[in-house]
Amino acid sequence: MGELRRGFASDNNAGIHPAIMKEIEAANTGHAVGYGADPFTSEAERLLREHLGNDTEVFFAFNGTAANVLGLWSVTRSFNSILTASTAHIEQDECGAPEKITGCKVLTVDTPDGKITPELLVRHMHGFDFEHHAQPKVISLTQATEMGTVYTPHEISIIAGYAHGKGLLLHMDGARISNAAVSLGLPFSEFTTRSGVDILTFGGTKNCLMYGEAVCFLRPGLSENFKYLRKQGMQLASKMRFISAQYIGFFRDGLWEKCAGHANGMAKLLEEKLNGISGVRITQKVESNGVFVIMPKSVAEEVRKTFFFYPWDEAVSEYRLMTSWDTTEEDIEDFVRLLKKEISHQ
Amino acid sequence: MGELRRGFASDNNAGIHPAIMKEIEAANTGHAVGYGADPFTSEAERLLREHLGNDTEVFFAFNGTAANVLGLWSVTRSFNSILTASTAHIEQDECGAPEKITGCKVLTVDTPDGKITPELLVRHMHGFDFEHHAQPKVISLTQATEMGTVYTPHEISIIAGYAHGKGLLLHMDGARISNAAVSLGLPFSEFTTRSGVDILTFGGTKNCLMYGEAVCFLRPGLSENFKYLRKQGMQLASKMRFISAQYIGFFRDGLWEKCAGHANGMAKLLEEKLNGISGVRITQKVESNGVFVIMPKSVAEEVRKTFFFYPWDEAVSEYRLMTSWDTTEEDIEDFVRLLKKEISHQ
Amino acid sequence: MGELRRGFASDNNAGIHPAIMKEIEAANTGHAVGYGADPFTSEAERLLREHLGNDTEVFFAFNGTAANVLGLWSVTRSFNSILTASTAHIEQDECGAPEKITGCKVLTVDTPDGKITPELLVRHMHGFDFEHHAQPKVISLTQATEMGTVYTPHEISIIAGYAHGKGLLLHMDGARISNAAVSLGLPFSEFTTRSGVDILTFGGTKNCLMYGEAVCFLRPGLSENFKYLRKQGMQLASKMRFISAQYIGFFRDGLWEKCAGHANGMAKLLEEKLNGISGVRITQKVESNGVFVIMPKSVAEEVRKTFFFYPWDEAVSEYRLMTSWDTTEEDIEDFVRLLKKEISHQ
Amino acid sequence: MGELRRGFASDNNAGIHPAIMKEIEAANTGHAVGYGADPFTSEAERLLREHLGNDTEVFFAFNGTAANVLGLWSVTRSFNSILTASTAHIEQDECGAPEKITGCKVLTVDTPDGKITPELLVRHMHGFDFEHHAQPKVISLTQATEMGTVYTPHEISIIAGYAHGKGLLLHMDGARISNAAVSLGLPFSEFTTRSGVDILTFGGTKNCLMYGEAVCFLRPGLSENFKYLRKQGMQLASKMRFISAQYIGFFRDGLWEKCAGHANGMAKLLEEKLNGISGVRITQKVESNGVFVIMPKSVAEEVRKTFFFYPWDEAVSEYRLMTSWDTTEEDIEDFVRLLKKEISHQ
Repeated sequence: MGELRRGFASDNNAGIHPAIMKEIEAANTGHAVGYGADPFTSEAERLLREHLGNDTEVFFAFNGTAANVLGLWSVTRSFNSILTASTAHIEQDECGAPEKITGCKVLTVDTPDGKITPELLVRHMHGFDFEHHAQPKVISLTQATEMGTVYTPHEISIIAGYAHGKGLLLHMDGARISNAAVSLGLPFSEFTTRSGVDILTFGGTKNCLMYGEAVCFLRPGLSENFKYLRKQGMQLASKMRFISAQYIGFFRDGLWEKCAGHANGMAKLLEEKLNGISGVRITQKVESNGVFVIMPKSVAEEVRKTFFFYPWDEAVSEYRLMTSWDTTEEDIEDFVRLLKKEISHQ
Repeated sequence: MGELRRGFASDNNAGIHPAIMKEIEAANTGHAVGYGADPFTSEAERLLREHLGNDTEVFFAFNGTAANVLGLWSVTRSFNSILTASTAHIEQDECGAPEKITGCKVLTVDTPDGKITPELLVRHMHGFDFEHHAQPKVISLTQATEMGTVYTPHEISIIAGYAHGKGLLLHMDGARISNAAVSLGLPFSEFTTRSGVDILTFGGTKNCLMYGEAVCFLRPGLSENFKYLRKQGMQLASKMRFISAQYIGFFRDGLWEKCAGHANGMAKLLEEKLNGISGVRITQKVESNGVFVIMPKSVAEEVRKTFFFYPWDEAVSEYRLMTSWDTTEEDIEDFVRLLKKEISHQ
Repeated sequence: MGELRRGFASDNNAGIHPAIMKEIEAANTGHAVGYGADPFTSEAERLLREHLGNDTEVFFAFNGTAANVLGLWSVTRSFNSILTASTAHIEQDECGAPEKITGCKVLTVDTPDGKITPELLVRHMHGFDFEHHAQPKVISLTQATEMGTVYTPHEISIIAGYAHGKGLLLHMDGARISNAAVSLGLPFSEFTTRSGVDILTFGGTKNCLMYGEAVCFLRPGLSENFKYLRKQGMQLASKMRFISAQYIGFFRDGLWEKCAGHANGMAKLLEEKLNGISGVRITQKVESNGVFVIMPKSVAEEVRKTFFFYPWDEAVSEYRLMTSWDTTEEDIEDFVRLLKKEISHQ
Repeated sequence: MGELRRGFASDNNAGIHPAIMKEIEAANTGHAVGYGADPFTSEAERLLREHLGNDTEVFFAFNGTAANVLGLWSVTRSFNSILTASTAHIEQDECGAPEKITGCKVLTVDTPDGKITPELLVRHMHGFDFEHHAQPKVISLTQATEMGTVYTPHEISIIAGYAHGKGLLLHMDGARISNAAVSLGLPFSEFTTRSGVDILTFGGTKNCLMYGEAVCFLRPGLSENFKYLRKQGMQLASKMRFISAQYIGFFRDGLWEKCAGHANGMAKLLEEKLNGISGVRITQKVESNGVFVIMPKSVAEEVRKTFFFYPWDEAVSEYRLMTSWDTTEEDIEDFVRLLKKEISHQ
């Protein structure tokens, strides 16, 4: 298959943890009823309830875009609006899927660090009960954020209180929820269910799984029609047990924590090594597995020939470096060595 | 995980072929660019072109519902209509996904055996250019059909000619395309590309894969915007290489043919054993891996306690029995023995 | 503006009754708050409640397609299905608007006379609670039907009972509700609210108005979000008073009854005159303002050069002749005379 | 009907010009083919071509929201994005209709005066050809703007050039296009077709008509499927001649110009009278028929008991005052007198 280039492009460029592969194989025995009525799925659901609270209702989908969109769809009507950060995945990286599928308006606010606050959101909190205006219904935040920062439970509680006070719900895009949990040193429930989150996309693909994300309803009464929406949203897996088995592996022996902890640690190491290099500036707090840096464009272009990574804001020559469960210290040393070399050649 | 009940409920109740598992493991080495820009995907695409024709454009999706809907979406506008059999998966088993996603009207015709013909379709072929009427744009057939029957290349050519003559396109839902190919003893291209099919859902999940189906555009010029539709349709896999690797395994050493051949053979065996049992009547030609039988409801209910399978038409006590790549002769013998016992107890 | 050709093409080819014009002019005095918060609209709503029952909630829309689609939209989610006759306006003549706007599947049954029955509908009443299958939610009938026939209150009650027994709602497309009321000799409420209809499109445009139809919710609790759906459905009129004023005129001095009675009478006259003409056969009972006839195609083509009307079923040379509030006896005599002449020339 | 309160709430609170009423009556003679195939519609289309250019294709819709949304729908696919000012009607006042109907993302920029510029839009001009990102396709501006300001032809040309240079189209929401034309002292074509606008909502309802707005395609090749979209969008009027007749009246003897000129003049008068009142500050240039003022909230609340008008930005106590073709000097004098009285009472 040729040689695969390593890099820092995305945590989904990584492979699958061997323990997950084993779990998939273990599930590959004989027949199982399709579409989720199998014991693997029951067990995976039980594990997520264990981590998120007993009222949690769990539905697996194929990928993160779908988990976000289906979760939002289930609690909105098309005349609603969804409020989020302008950097959010649902705004920038889902090709308009939220609008197409939900029919809702997505309203955004600019943030310094990917984190929304009530103060920022207030500009969209008007027109309630006025038929000319799309009705605000859900606030969506991302944990860890697209900028690698992490909300504290307190910050989330404040947004949840604000949302609920206005009759809105709080959605969390947890594509990198494991990285956030490790960063905070807290169980998942602490900054989700207990902080007032209503609907959660629980992500696994970016943290060592092959595919499959979970839409989790953290309060009763929100998932009434979800089974139909998932099917109509083309996200009901026939051989569901192979998604579920991965989540069994994810929680076995704290695999998720080891993988996310490793990725976060590698980001910290990268931050350390980049600090002090002249011409390189880190632009966001490194709180999970992403490092945002400004560096000379010509340098970046050279380094990208060897290590794959993406520009973030071309206007200011800012780049995004993501680490993953399989990033090695050697990857980082090689990358930094090359970067320094290219800078010295300028 | 407890004991899993075997049965004839669906070919997607089966597991994954060990050779496919190996292929997935082989792809799990290091980093690969996400979303399909990896060598596994290139190779899988090449293999599909080899089997379907050099002009074929290939896009993987997660499941069959999505592959059907995205394929139809790419060649329609919302004011179009899609014509199909009333038994079609897009009509009965996708929870309205085609209407929701494409906005199109789905128009159906009743058929004796799941196979549409121009004569049946003619009732919907009117209102062209009349703005009050949804404009017919695609005919969709299923190969093998939901009734286990198989279209000949000639039958498909006739429908294709009819479609093209009216300015319509021909879509094939090939969820069980391997079973059809084995049944016909013909290469895939013979009853798809060469018979005039324009858009094909090439299925693998029902024939020993874990997940992943291919939307194949068999003529140039049909896929222009497809990459956006797939993403907005929430069907772009980040770790695409693990879908692609399965298709590499699917075509290696004719695995697809062995698996589908086995399933078809088991259906034939089941037919043989059921023939002549008093009170049991086979209702459709057994041409692929499904056997449709009328049997006393009380008998069926008893047998279903041991072997899982679905009613098809409760009004006439008709049941559907699907075989798969991993059905064994023992499965069939056990099933038939139990069935005979229950009939004798009546 | 040149000469306008008279004919039997549609009741909406007619003009506006002078009394309606006067009512519009009377409303054209000074300022009125837009979007329905005006006294004309309150009065029109009161009048519709008077005729349909005190629990009725009334919302005006611009046209009949919109009134049908918005009414159906308000009581469905996209994973639902809508059951109707294959001749229904929502199936044949709205260019797929129901599917586009509601996302629902529209399922049809063939009928001999445009009238659905529980026996015909039963084929679509399955798959409840099964996530793969679009969930039946509304039955839609047309009164008077597209074939000019009229349901009795008893027939409607039976369908309503069947719908409600299965947890479905009953929708009536009343584009020609006045013609049905006159035909039955009953008040509107008798064959709507009291017969179990839940949502009603109350039509006026085909019975002497300029534009504007009413979505009427006949039972409490169905219109919760309707004001947003109407606005998002692009059907909220800014200068609403000019729709409302027409409905005030419609009910003043029984104008609606005179107009519909005249149209129905003209259809009866046309039927009489056509009866017994050799080569001409009336195919449906003439119960409202439509007459369906089979006649030689060559004759029809000649007559259509003078009188405008539409083919209904070209396969059998069937044509539709609609009368309206302004059809004259002379129109009919001239038409029949010409028809006879053309037949004799054959 | 009780007494109607006059005010400055909206130009659509006004009635219909008597000359328009006469034109409607003149069209009410005998039969006319429905849905636009009538001589009134041909004439109205001809008049719009005369004013906008010979390549113009004209389609009438019921209201402004629909004209905007259908125009945008016709040139987009759901994976596109539409760029506009955060104050735009399509963003604030259409209850999410653009998202629901087109499926597109609507991206906004804040502006000081309702006028977009390339510099403001640049933040959304990225991600071209990147399947994860909604593809920018149309820029929409409003003329006159929602803030009462008016773009010069030069300003529009610059935006058009920018749009076309990036492969985008330029849409104009011309709900108040007459007010802009009068303000600029230029023919319509000068700041539309000749300035590079591609799709235009030509508004009449806010300038003395009863209902009916025109979607105008100013360049060939943009309207291919529009007739189907209009019907599926529930905007095809059956008795079209009564919309068309209004446009014939609109252009007869320059009625549009007199009406818009009067409204603009009244806004100027209002501005003059408000200038210099202590505690009252005009916040936007008065270039068409809207005056934006900051005044003490308590004063505004008192005055609103007599004259109806809307708050614009409650955070800063800003209000919007709209004049119309039937605003009188007396209205303004009475309003200003009352306002002064309330201020002196503070």
